[in-house]
Amino acid sequence: MRNLQFLIICAFILFVFGIDFDPNRAKTQSVLINNIDGLKIKETLKTITAYPHVAGTPQNARVADTIANLWKRAGLEDVHFKEYEALLSYSDNDRPNHVSIIDKATGKTFFKTIGMSPVIIPYEQSTPRANIQWLAYSGDGTAIGEPVYANYGREEDFEKLKEIGISVKDKIVVIRYGRCYRGNKVKLAQKYGAKAVILYSDPAEVAQHGTHPSNTYPNSEWMPSGGVQRGSLKVSSGGDILTPLVPAIKDGYPTLTIEEAYEKQIIPRIPVIPLSYGDAYHILSRLSGNETVDYDAQGGFNFTYRYGPGFNDSNSVIKVEVNSKLETKTIRNIVGYIKGAVEPDQYVILGNHYDAWVYGSIDPGSGTAVLAEVARAFVKTMQQTNWRPARTIMFCAWDAEEHGLIGSTEFVEEFEKQLSERAVVYLNVDNIKSNGSFSAETIPSMFAQVVETAKVIRNPVEDEIRAGRTTVYDTWFKTFSTKFTPCHPDYPEMAIPAASSDMAGFLNYIGIPVINFTYRNASWTQYPLYHSLYETIFAQEHIFDTNDFAIHRSIGQFWAELARSYADKTVIPLNVTIFADQLKYNYLAELRGVVYDLALKHSELVDSANQLKILSDLSDRLLNRSRIIDNQVQNDISVAKWYSNRVFKVERCFINPNMSPEQPQNRHLLYSISDKNNYAAATMSHVYDVVSEIENATDVNTRKDGPGQLGVKLARAIALVQYGVNCVINQFDDVI
Amino acid sequence: MRNLQFLIICAFILFVFGIDFDPNRAKTQSVLINNIDGLKIKETLKTITAYPHVAGTPQNARVADTIANLWKRAGLEDVHFKEYEALLSYSDNDRPNHVSIIDKATGKTFFKTIGMSPVIIPYEQSTPRANIQWLAYSGDGTAIGEPVYANYGREEDFEKLKEIGISVKDKIVVIRYGRCYRGNKVKLAQKYGAKAVILYSDPAEVAQHGTHPSNTYPNSEWMPSGGVQRGSLKVSSGGDILTPLVPAIKDGYPTLTIEEAYEKQIIPRIPVIPLSYGDAYHILSRLSGNETVDYDAQGGFNFTYRYGPGFNDSNSVIKVEVNSKLETKTIRNIVGYIKGAVEPDQYVILGNHYDAWVYGSIDPGSGTAVLAEVARAFVKTMQQTNWRPARTIMFCAWDAEEHGLIGSTEFVEEFEKQLSERAVVYLNVDNIKSNGSFSAETIPSMFAQVVETAKVIRNPVEDEIRAGRTTVYDTWFKTFSTKFTPCHPDYPEMAIPAASSDMAGFLNYIGIPVINFTYRNASWTQYPLYHSLYETIFAQEHIFDTNDFAIHRSIGQFWAELARSYADKTVIPLNVTIFADQLKYNYLAELRGVVYDLALKHSELVDSANQLKILSDLSDRLLNRSRIIDNQVQNDISVAKWYSNRVFKVERCFINPNMSPEQPQNRHLLYSISDKNNYAAATMSHVYDVVSEIENATDVNTRKDGPGQLGVKLARAIALVQYGVNCVINQFDDVI
Repeated sequence: MRNLQFLIICAFILFVFGIDFDPNRAKTQSVLINNIDGLKIKETLKTITAYPHVAGTPQNARVADTIANLWKRAGLEDVHFKEYEALLSYSDNDRPNHVSIIDKATGKTFFKTIGMSPVIIPYEQSTPRANIQWLAYSGDGTAIGEPVYANYGREEDFEKLKEIGISVKDKIVVIRYGRCYRGNKVKLAQKYGAKAVILYSDPAEVAQHGTHPSNTYPNSEWMPSGGVQRGSLKVSSGGDILTPLVPAIKDGYPTLTIEEAYEKQIIPRIPVIPLSYGDAYHILSRLSGNETVDYDAQGGFNFTYRYGPGFNDSNSVIKVEVNSKLETKTIRNIVGYIKGAVEPDQYVILGNHYDAWVYGSIDPGSGTAVLAEVARAFVKTMQQTNWRPARTIMFCAWDAEEHGLIGSTEFVEEFEKQLSERAVVYLNVDNIKSNGSFSAETIPSMFAQVVETAKVIRNPVEDEIRAGRTTVYDTWFKTFSTKFTPCHPDYPEMAIPAASSDMAGFLNYIGIPVINFTYRNASWTQYPLYHSLYETIFAQEHIFDTNDFAIHRSIGQFWAELARSYADKTVIPLNVTIFADQLKYNYLAELRGVVYDLALKHSELVDSANQLKILSDLSDRLLNRSRIIDNQVQNDISVAKWYSNRVFKVERCFINPNMSPEQPQNRHLLYSISDKNNYAAATMSHVYDVVSEIENATDVNTRKDGPGQLGVKLARAIALVQYGVNCVINQFDDVI
Repeated sequence: MRNLQFLIICAFILFVFGIDFDPNRAKTQSVLINNIDGLKIKETLKTITAYPHVAGTPQNARVADTIANLWKRAGLEDVHFKEYEALLSYSDNDRPNHVSIIDKATGKTFFKTIGMSPVIIPYEQSTPRANIQWLAYSGDGTAIGEPVYANYGREEDFEKLKEIGISVKDKIVVIRYGRCYRGNKVKLAQKYGAKAVILYSDPAEVAQHGTHPSNTYPNSEWMPSGGVQRGSLKVSSGGDILTPLVPAIKDGYPTLTIEEAYEKQIIPRIPVIPLSYGDAYHILSRLSGNETVDYDAQGGFNFTYRYGPGFNDSNSVIKVEVNSKLETKTIRNIVGYIKGAVEPDQYVILGNHYDAWVYGSIDPGSGTAVLAEVARAFVKTMQQTNWRPARTIMFCAWDAEEHGLIGSTEFVEEFEKQLSERAVVYLNVDNIKSNGSFSAETIPSMFAQVVETAKVIRNPVEDEIRAGRTTVYDTWFKTFSTKFTPCHPDYPEMAIPAASSDMAGFLNYIGIPVINFTYRNASWTQYPLYHSLYETIFAQEHIFDTNDFAIHRSIGQFWAELARSYADKTVIPLNVTIFADQLKYNYLAELRGVVYDLALKHSELVDSANQLKILSDLSDRLLNRSRIIDNQVQNDISVAKWYSNRVFKVERCFINPNMSPEQPQNRHLLYSISDKNNYAAATMSHVYDVVSEIENATDVNTRKDGPGQLGVKLARAIALVQYGVNCVINQFDDVI
């Protein structure tokens, strides 16, 4: 019955806004797609990964110049830099970081890490000190103490330790990578009193086929025993550490001091070091204390993991030595344009960062090289066909993404008003990780166009084509089908984008529709070589994209064709019905489950439950309204401009700078970054935060802030979403 | 030398963007202006002032219906209501409010006010209980205590009392109207511990030609002895008391409880009553204590004013009885349209409120009647000439302005995104007060068009025409010439708009250019009959607009022609150069004076002074840039659309929702409402607030928040303005 109801509802959703400004769409499309050349991508990738290029270094400045020149040579217009002054973090090349096991009494060293990963492909990886193991924004200094193993370093892991009576106060906490952003792990460890943190890559995550060298890089994509994941420890969505909410322009004035940033725990005070599993073995295998067998904390080594504290040899302790410094550096974003012929002030934006922890052939080189090829292909297509896109296409190469989305966030903060005014969509590629399947994070209003585009791109994997899956879409749907979109069972899973790359500011700060896409292996949450020394072009050439860079080419084709669709379709392909559908059947359905349950337990929540009912009814109204609009647009092309001008601002309705007075950088009522994991998105976080407060309150109605106060707070939070939905409905009224 | 420099600078500022979409501009203009009919205004005014119509009453609902019908009959399109649920305040018609002088011991009454003003023009003023004397949002209840006279009730007045050893704690504070908004007076009195407040109209303000009946109403515009000023005591720029920052839509959820509103001092807890000077005489003449001769506290009565506390007869005390209630009511704004032919999504908005404290023939009836006539004249002109404005003209009639700008603020909160997107300018008339001179509050970018328009409207005063001043501009310039615009010595004074009427939300919350204009007497800050029973049509017909409503007609002509200019000029007449000029020579010059002085005294302010220098240099850059743009627009009409689309969003650059974390409703970096007087505007208040903190800090560099912290705070506040100016410059870049 429920299914039948769905079918009836879904039958109304027609969505093929197929008309383009370009009368020769089919030709333009095919020329553009065919112009993407895998070997040119490879050539660019070689150039930009010739040496390590961390943000703020002369090497990275050279990469920026290379990109700008490539873009200019390709024929982009107005290629220029946008500079900011950012507080970055560096290791000391002359003094590598070390972890040692020493005798507590004598100081004698039993074991000491070298602090540098072994070079495996010498002709690509031999730049002196490229192999140094470090983490940006670690505290500077030395700490000595007993080790405690804290699994993934999540809240539940620290709670588990507490429960079994293990305190991490003044301990050296050993945490494995995975499940959440490393900065969140360290922030929690510091909160629980840790003296230092060791972050290591466990074989369970990075060497699932075994740690024997024959199973790991360079023989596979799995991490070799000496590899470490570098990365940033900054926790905040404000871009530059010292200038949250304002642009870090030259001659500006910081809104925070470094001391204030420490106090707000944006960066840790304690030293933090990354270890390979080869090194971590020496520590983990010697831990004493409780076994982890009753809990999900056993990793990939073939011994029983223990929590500690301390070693089997109770005289041994750990020493962590980190040399880390903060430096203000000039960073440079690069922008370039193809001006639109019809709507030059409507921008379709393509972006990728170019700074890297080491050589960065995957992250971000794969994306950077593809973006340059997309630029070249667009201009070449224009030359071959006399076509020019109707809307402006803007190309962005971001700096200092790795330190914490700094280049793109400062840009978004500086040009907030102009971007809010002009940006239609933002299309991000951070990297191409593997050859498994296309994968995308995006928001519901873009679903239809993303799927449509994936259906016109040829499958880059010949085996897949032979299996009958001829398009990128086919493998994608096979790999990530979850039927999570009730009315569109043919849509693969598309998660909400979070803070894993530069789309974050565009969506969460300004309310611009965004997509972040890649090719990846479905069974990984992160690729094993992530942020390691081994991200050089060898990985692509000889491991995962061996067929003339077909995977990279395919991502380039998708990127170009998606941009062309947004730039050239007479009706901007953003669909409110699919959003309304998700709001109703997904976001609100989930919230209702939680709130109505709570309301049964707490009579003070009657207002909240009532307000949620009102919001649900409003989402029905939106759904009805958007269906009518779809029909209108479907049947009458003369409303195209009317619709387009309205629809591309719809997402702005959910930007509310007052939704979280304590966290003013949280501005999107629907989509924000999880506090617990910056890599994950949270839906209506300002609502769920109150839900958590209620769940954790021992007595809701006797709290000192008055009976029912939490219920009132929840009702208010829900009402804010209601006002956002109300705004979307108003957006389509001909008059206010 | 300085003058010569100015002349050279000013010579570059050419600004006659004279081309219109309409090829027959001259004809359209003259037909439109001639279509405004004074007698029709009078007729409408009679209809809408037939009975008292306080917001939220059935009488006011009838007025709303009348206006909507007038607009529909005139031919406006899409006339409809926008409803909100607002917390309003009412007196009790069956229990008028009283002030008595009683014997402390026996309770015997020596004197008691009637609580109602005498009816003077019976055929206009005889609705039962129309004459009740009350103040909206007064506390409910009775208070007994000794009187203290606190002059105008400003901070300095309470400080003066403190200085001479008089406490107002638990006293009944007697305050005269004038100099600042009544709500600010009461808030301060409550803060200093007053038990109740009496607000009275002093002859010095309202009967300057003497209190003898021959000198006052109905023989002049001066207040008669029994007249009182009603009004609201709400202090906040958030519209409805319970829903700051969100719209008070039906089915929404309040963000404050009434108790929280009291705690935040948005409304007072203590009873407050308005008195006529006839009644106040009985109290003031009997006060004991210090004379006020050494201070500006002597009012218009012919006895020496004393502060108290208490009466000459020390057995006497004052009793204040107030019956006041809060009620949630549905309020209704009315909107109507003339759709633009070329740019239908660009709105030129005309607005005025229609709710009144009593009959409201001046405030707001004069404006309401004129607005209906402007609507009629526009449609008639379209019928006569086949012309249609290029941009959309939107007409708004606001409800519950008198309770505290509620209708317009809720509207602005609900449609923030759409208004920010579509509104070109907002043109407000609250009322027409007298026949002295045209007078306007507006922002610099509108100066040129406002002056140009005033020059084409015929002077409504025949004596002035005979004296050679043939236009509205001529008398205006003669009356309010202050040479306050360095490059434009021909501009009369135009103050920055504050919260005296409905333009506030448009400017301060969304950053829409606004003007509020009127006819007034230059020697008054407020007209004597303000908010009294005597605001009936008699005041216009027989006192100040006796020549067939020539003054009202003239305001209508100005309003219509200004709207036509904004709706029809190919280049939207908003000028950034004049703004940049004011920023440099006025706002920043003043701030430099203050900050550089302070910096000489406090070495911690070196950063602030430096940041101000940077901002000043940036304002030079803006000035140079805007001059180049002016030239471009001047010489090449093909850039008209390019310029227009950019310039009408310029003011949005100064909206920063994070500028005052403690006061999130303060969002405009340049223009805000003075905390001390809601009727006055403050420039860069977030900067001057820190300046005050520094001035009041006894030791800037030893404060507990660390050495130089206030200097850092000031530099940060200045930098926010810098980012706003930076945004204006960016706004005109062809690419980001």
